[in-house]
Amino acid sequence: MIQERLEALRTEMKKRDIAMYIVPTADFHESEYVGEHFKAREFITGFTGSAGTAVITMTQAGLWTDGRYFVQAEKQLEGTTIHLYKMGEDGVPAISEYITRTLEEGECLSFDGRVVNGKWGDELAQIVEQKHGRLYTEEDLIDLIWENRPSLSRESVWLLDQKVSGRSIAEKLAAVRRKMEEERASLHILSSLVDIAWLLNVRGNDISYVPVVLSYLLLSADSCIWFLQEETLEDELRAELEKNGIVTRPYESFYDTVKTLEKQTILLNRSVVNYRICSAIPASNTIVDRPDPTAAMKAAKNWIEIDHIRQAHVRDAVAMCKFMYWLKKNVGKIPMTELSVSEHLEKLRAEQDGFLDLSFETICGYQEHGAIVHYAATLETDAALEAKGFLLVDSGGHYLEGTTDITRTFVLGPVTDEMKEDYTRVCRANLNLANTRFLHGCTGRNLDIIAREPFWEAGLDYKHGTGHGVGYILNVHEGPNAFRWKASGEDAVLEEGMITTDEPGIYLEGRYGIRLENELLCRKGRKNEYGQFMYFENLTYVPFDLDAIVPEQMTEVERRRLNEYHMNVYRTVSPFLHGEELAWLKEATREI
Amino acid sequence: MIQERLEALRTEMKKRDIAMYIVPTADFHESEYVGEHFKAREFITGFTGSAGTAVITMTQAGLWTDGRYFVQAEKQLEGTTIHLYKMGEDGVPAISEYITRTLEEGECLSFDGRVVNGKWGDELAQIVEQKHGRLYTEEDLIDLIWENRPSLSRESVWLLDQKVSGRSIAEKLAAVRRKMEEERASLHILSSLVDIAWLLNVRGNDISYVPVVLSYLLLSADSCIWFLQEETLEDELRAELEKNGIVTRPYESFYDTVKTLEKQTILLNRSVVNYRICSAIPASNTIVDRPDPTAAMKAAKNWIEIDHIRQAHVRDAVAMCKFMYWLKKNVGKIPMTELSVSEHLEKLRAEQDGFLDLSFETICGYQEHGAIVHYAATLETDAALEAKGFLLVDSGGHYLEGTTDITRTFVLGPVTDEMKEDYTRVCRANLNLANTRFLHGCTGRNLDIIAREPFWEAGLDYKHGTGHGVGYILNVHEGPNAFRWKASGEDAVLEEGMITTDEPGIYLEGRYGIRLENELLCRKGRKNEYGQFMYFENLTYVPFDLDAIVPEQMTEVERRRLNEYHMNVYRTVSPFLHGEELAWLKEATREI
Repeated sequence: MIQERLEALRTEMKKRDIAMYIVPTADFHESEYVGEHFKAREFITGFTGSAGTAVITMTQAGLWTDGRYFVQAEKQLEGTTIHLYKMGEDGVPAISEYITRTLEEGECLSFDGRVVNGKWGDELAQIVEQKHGRLYTEEDLIDLIWENRPSLSRESVWLLDQKVSGRSIAEKLAAVRRKMEEERASLHILSSLVDIAWLLNVRGNDISYVPVVLSYLLLSADSCIWFLQEETLEDELRAELEKNGIVTRPYESFYDTVKTLEKQTILLNRSVVNYRICSAIPASNTIVDRPDPTAAMKAAKNWIEIDHIRQAHVRDAVAMCKFMYWLKKNVGKIPMTELSVSEHLEKLRAEQDGFLDLSFETICGYQEHGAIVHYAATLETDAALEAKGFLLVDSGGHYLEGTTDITRTFVLGPVTDEMKEDYTRVCRANLNLANTRFLHGCTGRNLDIIAREPFWEAGLDYKHGTGHGVGYILNVHEGPNAFRWKASGEDAVLEEGMITTDEPGIYLEGRYGIRLENELLCRKGRKNEYGQFMYFENLTYVPFDLDAIVPEQMTEVERRRLNEYHMNVYRTVSPFLHGEELAWLKEATREI
Repeated sequence: MIQERLEALRTEMKKRDIAMYIVPTADFHESEYVGEHFKAREFITGFTGSAGTAVITMTQAGLWTDGRYFVQAEKQLEGTTIHLYKMGEDGVPAISEYITRTLEEGECLSFDGRVVNGKWGDELAQIVEQKHGRLYTEEDLIDLIWENRPSLSRESVWLLDQKVSGRSIAEKLAAVRRKMEEERASLHILSSLVDIAWLLNVRGNDISYVPVVLSYLLLSADSCIWFLQEETLEDELRAELEKNGIVTRPYESFYDTVKTLEKQTILLNRSVVNYRICSAIPASNTIVDRPDPTAAMKAAKNWIEIDHIRQAHVRDAVAMCKFMYWLKKNVGKIPMTELSVSEHLEKLRAEQDGFLDLSFETICGYQEHGAIVHYAATLETDAALEAKGFLLVDSGGHYLEGTTDITRTFVLGPVTDEMKEDYTRVCRANLNLANTRFLHGCTGRNLDIIAREPFWEAGLDYKHGTGHGVGYILNVHEGPNAFRWKASGEDAVLEEGMITTDEPGIYLEGRYGIRLENELLCRKGRKNEYGQFMYFENLTYVPFDLDAIVPEQMTEVERRRLNEYHMNVYRTVSPFLHGEELAWLKEATREI
């Protein structure tokens, strides 16, 4: 099937004299996850992971993806003639390197200009220029060959009450306009869906697990135009928008509007705004290429948001504790599989007040499946759980009060000493980062090593960042804060109100995986002659599984940290549990 | 006197219709320290610190310097009419901010184009352009008013044997030429004195403590021209240069040569090469603005250099141990002052084989003087040592085998519990960084926090980087490697062979200072599926003063690290000590 699709694509390429066609994983908004309509890369390769880029020539086809997906991609690409390029491995060319090497003098490189951001588009254009070739970005070739392609999502839009958002639309618009003034920009183009949702205090449902609205925004000092599928708006919301001077226009008309701009100074982020938009802006305008002002604003949560988030985490913790109790009590006694326990967990979350949706597809991996970092069970892989080994569950919910993300690894029965040692190491790493004190000015690049020390001293590592920012009833992955030791574009100073996950892990291919994830709220501590000290407040209240903790491997300080954490878990969750569940929690959070 | 000099300068400024004149601390080569001839900023302000910039207008005069020198500058500027601008303090304008505010429309800004680097010069030129003013950089006005100015240093040049350098001039030239090819550069302008000395395997003595030769280098694929005061060359060296195809030209003729360049692609570092050179390059040439290739090459020491460096450190350790024994035994019994013990230490170093010179001016601070980070005792401040409190000594030597830099803080008699607690904290920080294991790819920004943790957890800090690279019989401060948590321009990946100091400290103004500094050699450890692990080899073998160590404040691991370190100190230094000194070393390195 993939072979046929590739041939169909090549036929279209041939008609247009295109030598190379790029299919990234993207919508028109550089969203991390994309709606069904936008799964072109999955369509053309058969690889279902959330990240990857396909490059197709007349004779070759390649898929680039990262370490999280090597195992999965290898399986899914079997027999497709598509070569897997494992990004970051020795000797594997980067995409642009491959293109530079493969594209021949005078040839045509093509992609849909709406699914490549401005910055990457510029780089590709430069490669083509060096080859004296042609760049063609006006068509979506996949659309021509994709029969029964899902249409654009068009879910209804709802308003976030100010009691929940903590800041009115008017306040947020004013803050962004002040930032525009600082940058001397007369216009701001915002195409990031999570940023638009934050700014307008709206939520939608156009991407699975990400409650956003497909739209673009054009903001000036005295106007605000929202380009969206207008039929998704209810009257109440329409009135609220009008009150704030926001007018709407059809989603598709945005590109035509852009073409009419004249002599403006336009603030936009070329790494987010797509290449077709960037290219459509007439030359009389000046572009100020900066991060979207909303990115930093929405990352540092306000105190009303934080109060709600704390509540959401308590609800989530209650569901998780009930799940942990049920799982450990019943495993081996009643039939359980990865999918069935995931469903049970979703049911427990759904019982909580204010539950809206899961915040991402649950990762529930038994034994060796736990070693696949972004494993998602399917009917084919769904493993039966037995009363032994580890079960890794990474999950979260959107509540009316906020978004959660938590990973626990559960002991289902006998585990080896090595497994316990590894579990203890992951737990130490998690707690050490959570308890660190640091000076304001630090970024996640400075702090990441705190979590990695217990691994590196033993010659071990985990091949992912230690943590990511978390949105507020928005994308569960949010920038610009993160814990990552490697240099990357985003390296934001950790500010009060930022929420970042703390999720070290260990993954032994074919054997087991362990990850323990809490969310940490960055807060101000004491200020003295040395500067403003910062610390983290733990937002997640679910026991670490003491059945796999080896106290002797922890320092006294580490043991104290674990005991204090468990004391807080008990204090927070116990009012919501009763009977056997409560007794179990007491035992599960006992001092060691 | 300063007042008269300022007036003389203003007279010259008036003649040329100059409104503002800048006098930085610099020679023509962006050296960290400058020779006597180049101390123009000291001449015009009276301030003797190693860093600072003076800006003089018809009515105002200001000096900008950093936190290390606030106290000293305040004293030295008293009564000079020169205003001290404390860099980094709240409300103090940066130099360029001050210039932007103060320079009026159409006015003339001036500086000697040879003592400002190309990058800063560009920024200043831009300010002038915005003001529609005039930039004048062709003259050194200070030279016109400085009677009896020391002439340019003209010390003799000596050749570093390949047995010591580890790499021949030919190999080094070839490596730089390969790098030029990669950058598609036909020419390379090198003006950094330490880089020229490294590349040509030569050393000189044109800057105190930094054995370099005032010179410029112009390198192409088939020629190498060295511009220097040719009379400093001996016949043997001249022959060696000729063998390597290196021709010499007079130092001053470099600027005329630059003006004749045509249609070249010139690799140079605008942050190092001075503004007059950058401006003199005709427009037909293309500039490739990159770090000097030699910077990374000389930072990663080769194995022959490393073998020598290890020897230099053993010699240095013997001198330091003898000093420590002598100091602690005799303090309070014979007269000692900061200056007299510094001289004694220099004498002990000079007794070692291969000793060439100190590698920087010794910092020897008793009690509250130890809290002044870059204190240098003068006849006026020279404190008498008593049998109590701390003495901080930061010192080092150039030997024929390499350069050393070490700080120890000595207990001269009774110290308080708080002092011991602080000392123990500094010691823990030093050892924790020295013992860390990390994946290749880490920079000093990732690792700095390892040393800072014991401070930050207690709400303390030290306001300097944790460490800097060290040159090989060159500048004791060398890039691009360093331990620094804050983002700065240089953030090099730690490569095998790089040597970086590890020098946490604590400074209580008016009371005492503690700093403990070792040098760490970066080495490859095991390589496995997670990547290439790296570790540090300690190069410095001098006891930490156990009289101020509180074992109870250390974890078991930390105590083991200290005991292992002391075991190595004893093993390394004991063969060179005898009698009482040897017995003392045994006791000073005892297990705790």
